This record gives sequence, structure tokens and C-alpha cells, in this order.
Amino acid sequence: MRLTPEQDAEIASVRAETRPTLRATVPALEEILYQPLPVLDHGFVRVIDYMGDDAAVVQAARVSYGKGTRKISEDRGLIHYLLRHRHTTPFEMCEIKYHVKLPIFVARQWIRHRTANVNEYSARYSILDREFYLPAPEQLAAQSASNRQGRGDLLEGKEAARVLDLLGEDAMRSYGHYEEMLNERADGTVIEEGRAGLARELARMNLTLGFYTQWYWKTDLHNLLHFLALRADPHAQYEIRVYAEAMIETVRRWVPLVHEAFAEHVLGGVKLSATAWAAVRRMLAGEPVTEQTSGLGKREWRELMAALGRG
Amino acid sequence: MRLTPEQDAEIASVRAETRPTLRATVPALEEILYQPLPVLDHGFVRVIDYMGDDAAVVQAARVSYGKGTRKISEDRGLIHYLLRHRHTTPFEMCEIKYHVKLPIFVARQWIRHRTANVNEYSARYSILDREFYLPAPEQLAAQSASNRQGRGDLLEGKEAARVLDLLGEDAMRSYGHYEEMLNERADGTVIEEGRAGLARELARMNLTLGFYTQWYWKTDLHNLLHFLALRADPHAQYEIRVYAEAMIETVRRWVPLVHEAFAEHVLGGVKLSATAWAAVRRMLAGEPVTEQTSGLGKREWRELMAALGRG
Amino acid sequence: MRLTPEQDAEIASVRAETRPTLRATVPALEEILYQPLPVLDHGFVRVIDYMGDDAAVVQAARVSYGKGTRKISEDRGLIHYLLRHRHTTPFEMCEIKYHVKLPIFVARQWIRHRTANVNEYSARYSILDREFYLPAPEQLAAQSASNRQGRGDLLEGKEAARVLDLLGEDAMRSYGHYEEMLNERADGTVIEEGRAGLARELARMNLTLGFYTQWYWKTDLHNLLHFLALRADPHAQYEIRVYAEAMIETVRRWVPLVHEAFAEHVLGGVKLSATAWAAVRRMLAGEPVTEQTSGLGKREWRELMAALGRG
Amino acid sequence: MRLTPEQDAEIASVRAETRPTLRATVPALEEILYQPLPVLDHGFVRVIDYMGDDAAVVQAARVSYGKGTRKISEDRGLIHYLLRHRHTTPFEMCEIKYHVKLPIFVARQWIRHRTANVNEYSARYSILDREFYLPAPEQLAAQSASNRQGRGDLLEGKEAARVLDLLGEDAMRSYGHYEEMLNERADGTVIEEGRAGLARELARMNLTLGFYTQWYWKTDLHNLLHFLALRADPHAQYEIRVYAEAMIETVRRWVPLVHEAFAEHVLGGVKLSATAWAAVRRMLAGEPVTEQTSGLGKREWRELMAALGRG
Repeated sequence: MRLTPEQDAEIASVRAETRPTLRATVPALEEILYQPLPVLDHGFVRVIDYMGDDAAVVQAARVSYGKGTRKISEDRGLIHYLLRHRHTTPFEMCEIKYHVKLPIFVARQWIRHRTANVNEYSARYSILDREFYLPAPEQLAAQSASNRQGRGDLLEGKEAARVLDLLGEDAMRSYGHYEEMLNERADGTVIEEGRAGLARELARMNLTLGFYTQWYWKTDLHNLLHFLALRADPHAQYEIRVYAEAMIETVRRWVPLVHEAFAEHVLGGVKLSATAWAAVRRMLAGEPVTEQTSGLGKREWRELMAALGRG
Repeated sequence: MRLTPEQDAEIASVRAETRPTLRATVPALEEILYQPLPVLDHGFVRVIDYMGDDAAVVQAARVSYGKGTRKISEDRGLIHYLLRHRHTTPFEMCEIKYHVKLPIFVARQWIRHRTANVNEYSARYSILDREFYLPAPEQLAAQSASNRQGRGDLLEGKEAARVLDLLGEDAMRSYGHYEEMLNERADGTVIEEGRAGLARELARMNLTLGFYTQWYWKTDLHNLLHFLALRADPHAQYEIRVYAEAMIETVRRWVPLVHEAFAEHVLGGVKLSATAWAAVRRMLAGEPVTEQTSGLGKREWRELMAALGRG
Repeated sequence: MRLTPEQDAEIASVRAETRPTLRATVPALEEILYQPLPVLDHGFVRVIDYMGDDAAVVQAARVSYGKGTRKISEDRGLIHYLLRHRHTTPFEMCEIKYHVKLPIFVARQWIRHRTANVNEYSARYSILDREFYLPAPEQLAAQSASNRQGRGDLLEGKEAARVLDLLGEDAMRSYGHYEEMLNERADGTVIEEGRAGLARELARMNLTLGFYTQWYWKTDLHNLLHFLALRADPHAQYEIRVYAEAMIETVRRWVPLVHEAFAEHVLGGVKLSATAWAAVRRMLAGEPVTEQTSGLGKREWRELMAALGRG
Repeated sequence: MRLTPEQDAEIASVRAETRPTLRATVPALEEILYQPLPVLDHGFVRVIDYMGDDAAVVQAARVSYGKGTRKISEDRGLIHYLLRHRHTTPFEMCEIKYHVKLPIFVARQWIRHRTANVNEYSARYSILDREFYLPAPEQLAAQSASNRQGRGDLLEGKEAARVLDLLGEDAMRSYGHYEEMLNERADGTVIEEGRAGLARELARMNLTLGFYTQWYWKTDLHNLLHFLALRADPHAQYEIRVYAEAMIETVRRWVPLVHEAFAEHVLGGVKLSATAWAAVRRMLAGEPVTEQTSGLGKREWRELMAALGRG
């Protein structure tokens, strides 16, 4: 269960009433404000608040007044220019706040991005819910033989079933013992009257890293794009990539011109070393270039071939 | 002139039209949104955008859903508790963006606060206006004899007049030569046709530190309060303190409960060292305590006496 | 086992050889450089590198040249003054790097301090060791009745034994299944030839939050003191407090004057709200002040009484 | 005068004595430790302290123990891989501290890089020296006609002479009046006995942006490389670029493998948008591509041609 009935009711309630503001608003983002976008089996991302829009980036770049009055076509060109030339500060003038529900092992990767504000659900104060991540069968991959941090072929049949059994049983058992040690359930009911429960800050250590936590996460648009570039990358772990992908969709609604420039210059762009670029220029001059004559290491050569569609 | 007629018109224009939003709004802050609050002789602070309100702090602390439904009295208690116990992250969930016009020497102090986003008017691209700070007579103080970074008695009569003459004449002359080197005026008119002007990025170095610059400055509420605590302090230089004071007024409008807690625990609070607190406890036990028997250094003893109203 | 024999040998090897440097050195810290200070049942903190000393703080405050030549007594006074008056930037001129081994649930609290550099052992690449935290009997406390995030009375007898059994058994079982899913042990041996193991980045989610991880953690002295003030506080969870206490000892060796000022102004200091300070001044004036007449809330009054030793 | 005789003597004194340390040392950097590298007419950069070396980057990436024992060839490959794939945290494990003397308008650009620690000479406390930047004739360029923030042709003859006269005279006059208002000289001598001088924090505003200030600036290797990539770029203003170039030389001495990777992947690398890369691939496939058929804007097409050496 992603949201409790109480939470659903509360979201409906805040979405029922609009208020007037003099600030910039983004109707396409307001359409989904507060609403959870489902991610993984129990997780979600939802936009809680935002500040600024495409025009705010332009306005900061021009340190102009009011809302900016140029034509859209000029704004688009300026935003592309800013992103291409790493003029990052205008993008810092927009801010967004998310509410995210995510497995703890995903939260541990995510938190390494430090230029954000975070308020996480505290298992010192409160009892975590009985919700943990169980991979879908099409995500149950073996360790990659070639890439020390990647996934290889899918596990199948008996082996896949065994993994899902172990993950599920261990999570259920550890949660059951968590409740037993607490002598309390997440809904506040006491299990055995008169017995003292273990302190929450200690009992939580019996939960596995697959359990869901949740937090408020707030950052500016520049740092958000940096986070998304790294976490929507094919090398990122699947379980965080799906969050990044859901968030890119919110960026598209929020700041469509920035989203377009981001797709063009970052997500779809390429970075080449001096030697790789020299190899490309030699190819363009008609010279046959091989891994041996390129001056590149094996791995970087493979990356170049992939970028050239010759992978 | 604080704002040009065009800027005044633009502010009037953006203030003329409200839009509906599902986000939290703060009517008391909307009342002054975009409007310049005058500071010093030509400067101002104006709120350009904001995210969140008192309830957003509470909501983050509770990682609850929607807008928070507790009673105001409970929210007040929680906010006081959070501030007193340095639970700073909930205050990071609110964000505010200012447009500030300020003398360059003030900007150089301000920028030392690094946890903020800044877009400053660029004198590499554009020509600065002929506007510089000239202290009011009641600010024209001599160097303090006792405090190496403070002000002492007022300068008066001939000496005060001489200082104002020098500051004004040097600023005017340096600006005149700035224009001459650029061969261009701030309004874009060329002074002498056919002559190449010096690059803007070089010519600007002829301006004095009293000239006004402007920037967009955006930060979260926690870091804003930290900035205000330091810069509204009596030890801060007058010329930055008046900006802090104007901004505290915007905080009072924006998040009144947080403002109340800030006044109570930070602005009006005291911090005592172990030895100073021991001295207070000895006094409470009826023991006469002197500078000599207090164990405190001369300066800290003086600070303690001042805090006790015996200064 | 805190360290493997290979690690012990490597530490002995790097400690066997000194090199000449023109930089400031701190012999009292060099004495324990690289050596693990034990924390909890399997954890440790060890200093890996450092930059600067007490004199570097003084030097930055004076932006003077070379190593600073004033007398120790003047340096002490300046350092106390800087800390008391929140002149924090000179303390940022010293840097320290630690290697820490700690339970994952402690790491999750620790990482919330964002102004530090971190490199954590990656369970995407590598296999975690079979090491988890099991509280000592004198730490096995019940949930506090009065403090939602604190500990109350000790669990005893059968209940304590049951908790330790559950924590130990669940950790062992989850680790056993972790190895089974990986089809590999931490030492690299394959369990069952010919069977594909689950990707490491997935298998890790079966481990509980009590398992040990490790990281390099590097920060400047100002942010270190801020971290230590919060985490050595009696309200901090015991399992992180013991790390903070071990680190305070390294600060004492490294920058003894700063450590003294930190103990005096931060660890041993008090902060009082405007109302609490007014209550103290009324008491000093001979007025009887009660909770009711103090104007303080119940909790803050209790805190004031505790600070006055009347708790 | 870059350094006073007292400063020269102090540098000689700290360089005369080595101390033993167990930390990693870098002899090539120790060779120039404390010594000023001249920049512009009166400025300098000098390394005051450092932490870590190439091996510390590798060690952090491996979270291994001690000093790292792999072969240099493997370390080189790993460092190139880390930099190419934006694994930035291992580079944060090295730290460096500089003492920099620089014109105020350069300091204002520099300080926009926020992830560093700074202690600047305070003109609230102290009197600035009579030292200001005067561009060399070969730097006296006109405003660029095509680039709003760049330089164009050199000014020559009478015009160049006039600019230098104005810059020099205005700086000298503003300094003279600064002293007169202070009623004190930088060496502490009083000008006119019995007259109260203006507070330093006010008098400083009469100085121009060309005057020199100085600061301690400390950052980690990752953020240093980011700063250098932006500030050694041809689009950066000459007066900050020369500082970046001097600092790149210190990086080369300090961490030669990182320097090599930085030159290969960042300084010498290229970044292309999706459309630009598609154009390159079309060219490689033998298709003639023009600005019109490329899908690129005028400016980006020009940048691509320049990168291809067809500019």
C-alpha cells in the first residue's frame, strides 16, 4: 500500500482548494502537485512545492526586473547557451521539494548528493511500516561478469524463486521480530501488556536494507539536474534510476525549456577526452583508426565505439 | 534613484495580476511581494519569491502529509522546541529569494555566507550606474579606540564635511573616468564616435567600493536565520545591519511563528561559557563574584556584566 | 575482528617510516596516526591524515605569514575569543581525515552532516564482512516513557536475553542467505560451482541495519566541532555518541587550545532564551521565580532547572 | 612590492627546518612550499599546506588500508577512469591551502566558487597597502564587438596611455584620500596628531576595485579542479586566468597523475550536444553537413567548427 486512506484523503483535500498568488506559477506542474507518482513496488515521488519557472532562470541570467518580457525563442536560446557553457547559477534560482518513499538501500545512495535539504522519517521516534522492496522477476539479475558493479543475465526458474523466497521470508521475519522487540505494532497497539519494549532506536537495527523509508527532499534546479544526470545514467542502479526517471518527468512539466536543453546537452550529449577527440578528427580526415593506433585504453575505446554506434 | 520608471512600471504590472495555486501561500508576504524596501541612500531589498510557510516547518518535522492539521498552539511549541534544540533541517524546507541593491563593500561581506544562491549584475557584460553610497552624517564615525573593528564618536563639523567631500568627489571622478575609458554611458550612448572603448571587465576596476551593485540572493530559512543572527548583531557593520533588519521584517511577515522563536531563542538569547555560567550560579548561591574571582578574562567579564544589565 | 592481519601489518608498515616535511606537524597526533581507536564491539575510528594545528587557526585569523610567532598565551586568548564570538572561518583552515568502521544505522545518522567528504565501502562492488553490532547488556534499554526518542530502564533477564538472541540470529541468518544468494563468500570462494549468483547491488538488501560498513570521512575543524557538539550531546544516540567521544580525544591531541576552548564555550556552555535569561536575572535580583511565573513552558523550565543544578 | 622583507625572512625561516611526519608527503610540492609564485604586477599564489597525494585518491577509491601498494600503471588507469566517469568523491580526499594576493575585482569573481574555505585580510580591522593593479600594455584591450563579455583589439598609442594615466592617477588619489580620512598610514603612523580619523570600515569604500587584497583559500582537489577548469578557460577574464594557470602548475607538482588525467579529460576534452554529436557522426558517414543542415544554432556551429580545427 503506497498511501493510507487518510493520506489519500489529505491529498484530495489540499488539491481541492486553490489560493491566489502573485508568484510565478506553472499550471502543468500544479496538475500533479501533491500526487504520488508510483515507483517500484511500494515507493513514490511526489512534488510538494516549487519556486520559479523557465522565466526565473532567464530573469536571473539577465538580473532583470519582474517577470521577463522577451520572446520565448530568445529565452530558449539563452537557456541552451547557459547550460552548454556551464553558467550554472541561474538554474539555482529555481527550487523544488519532493516527498519520496524509497527503500533504505536506495536512500543510502541518494543521500550522497549533499547539496540538498532532507528531512527523513525517524525510526528513533516512530515505528516503520511493514513494507519492503521485492524486485520484479525481470529485475532479478545475476552479477555481471564484466562489470564489477553491474548486472548480467537474468536469474530464472528455481534460482529466481529461491531468491524471492529468501528476500521475502527474511524481511517478514525481521519485521516480526522488530515488532516483538518493540512490544508494539506500527498502529500503536501493544502486543503484550506489562512488558517493556526495546527502545525504537535499537530495535530498528533488525530491519533489512530493503525496507521502505521516506523523506522530504528539496534542492535547486542546478543540483537537481546534476543528480538526475548521474542517477538516470545507464550505469546507475536500476532501483534509483526509476526514481530519477519519474523526476525527469516532473522537470519536463515544471521547466520545459530547461528540460529540452538538459536532454540536448547533458542526457544526450557526449564528453570525449583529448585523445578520443583526436581519434575522431583523424577518422574525419579519412585515416583508419584502430584501438591500437587510437592511443586509447581498452575500456575508453569501447566507450567511443559505443558512442559512434559501432559498439 | 532606487528604481527606474520602467522598473516601477514592471513591478506594478506583476503585482496587478494574481494566479491560482495549490501551494501554500502567505498573504502577509504577498502584500509586499516584488516591492522594494528602501535601505541606505540608494539600496533596497525586495522579496521576489518564496516557498513554504510556518506549517511547512512543522510538516517537515513531522514528515506528515498535506498541510498539517494540528492546532496553532502545538505548532508554536514545536517550532520553539526545534529552534532551541538546534533541529535545523525542518527550517531548511522553506526558501526565499531576494533582489538586493547594495554597495560593493557590503556585498563583499555578505557573500562570505556561502550556503546561498547568487546571481550578481555583471560589470563584465554591462555598465554600472552612477550610484554610490554616501553615509548620512549620523553614521560618520571615527575609528573606535577600544574596538579594532568598531566605530567610536561621530565626526563633526569641518572634518565630517571634508570626509563627505572626498568620498563624493572621488566617486564622481572615478565614475567620469570609467565612462571616458569605456567611451560609453550607462544608457548606451557613445561619447566619442570612432574611438574604441576599454573592455568593460577592465574599466570597472576604476570604480570605488562604495558603488552599488545588485543581485538575486536565494537561501533557505535556516541559513537565512543564521545570516540574520550574525548580521543584525550590534557588532556587525551598520551598513549591512540595516539590510538584515529590513529582512527580519520580511521574515516576520512570512513565518510569524518562526520569527517569534528566533527573537526569543537567538536574537534575545544568551550564550555563556562554562566559567561564566558557574559565576552566575555562584551569584545565585549568594556568593559575591568579582572579575578577579570569576575566572573570566577581562573582555568576557565585561560581556557577562552587560548581559546582566550591570554593564 | 576489527582489523585483518593484513591490515595490521599495513598499519605497522606505514608507521615504521617517517618522512621530512616543511608543513606544520603535531607530534601528539602523529603518535596515534593510522591506529584504530576501538568503538563498540567491532568498530573503530582512526586518523588517516591531518592539515594544520592550533597555530594555523591563529594564523588564518591574523592572515599573517609563516607560522605565527606570538606567545602561546595570546594564541589561547584569541582562540577563545574566536569560538565565543562565532568567528568560524579560521577553524575551517584545519582539516582532518578519518577512517571509520561503524554500523549502517549509525552511518545513516552521521551522513546527515553534509559538509564533509565521504568515500564509503561499496556493497555494489564488494561483499560486506560477516560483522554486525550486538549491544552490550548495559545498553539494552527500553523505550523511554517520557522521551519519544530516548531510552529508559534497562531490559533484564529473560527479556534482554530474548532481544540478544533475536538480533544475533536474524543477523546471522540474513548474512547466510546473503552469501547463498551471491553464491560467493566475502573471501571470494564460490559456494556452488556453475550457479549464477545474484548481483551484489541486490543481494545486499537482505542485510540488516546492524551490519558494519566503513568509510573515509574528511572535514574541516569548524564542521568537525559542530558535528561533535551535536553527537557528543547526551540526547544523541549512544551508538553514535561513543564515536564522537573517541574523536574528541583526537581533537585534544591535535589542537589542544581549540579543544580547551570547545570544552569551555560549547560542550560546557549554556544557551538560554530571552525568557529564561530574564528569569535568571529576576532570581539574581532576589525575586522568587516559579515555573508558573517564569513564563517558560514546562520542558524549558525543566531544562533551566537542570542547568542550575536544581533538576 | 610583493612581500615585505619581514615576510621574506619569515618564509626563509619556515623553509629552513623540516620536521618528521608519518603522513604522505610530496617532495616536488615541498620544494615550493610557502614560496610565492608571482602573478600580475603585485600578486602571488603560494601553497601553505596540503593533505594527500595521488595515492590518497586511489586509496579512497579502494577504501583500502594504509598507503596503497598497487603499481603506478594501475593507479594511473584508475585515476583516468574516475575522472572520466565523474566519480568525484575520491578527489575530495586531498586538500590544499593557498595564500593569494589578488586585486579586489578578481577576488569578487573568485569568491563565487563557494565550496572552499576563505579567510580574507580585513579592511575593517587593518589598513590596506598602497598597491593596485595596472594592466600591462599588452592587456589593454578594447571591448569586443562580438562578445559582450570579452576583449577585442588592443588599445594603442595615446588611448592606451590615457587609460593607464587615469587608472594610475585615480588609484593614487583615492589611496591618498583614504589615508587622509583615516588620519593614519598603513605603517601605523598618525598623519595629524589630535585629529580623529574616520572608521576603517567606512574609509575603505574610497578605494577602487583595482587594489590588492589577500586571503587564505583552502579547498579539496575535486573542487579545485572544477575551479581551474572554469577559470583557466579561454573565456575567463585574463586577470583570473593567470592565477588559475599558476595553480595548475602546483597541481602538476602535487598530484602528477591527477594532473595528467585532468589535462586529458577536462582541459583538453570536448563536450558535444546530442545534435552536434549527430552532425559529427553524419560527417563520419560521409554526409556533407553545413550549418543549415546541422540543426545547430549559429554560435554552437561555430564552436563545433573550432573544435574540429575548421574555425
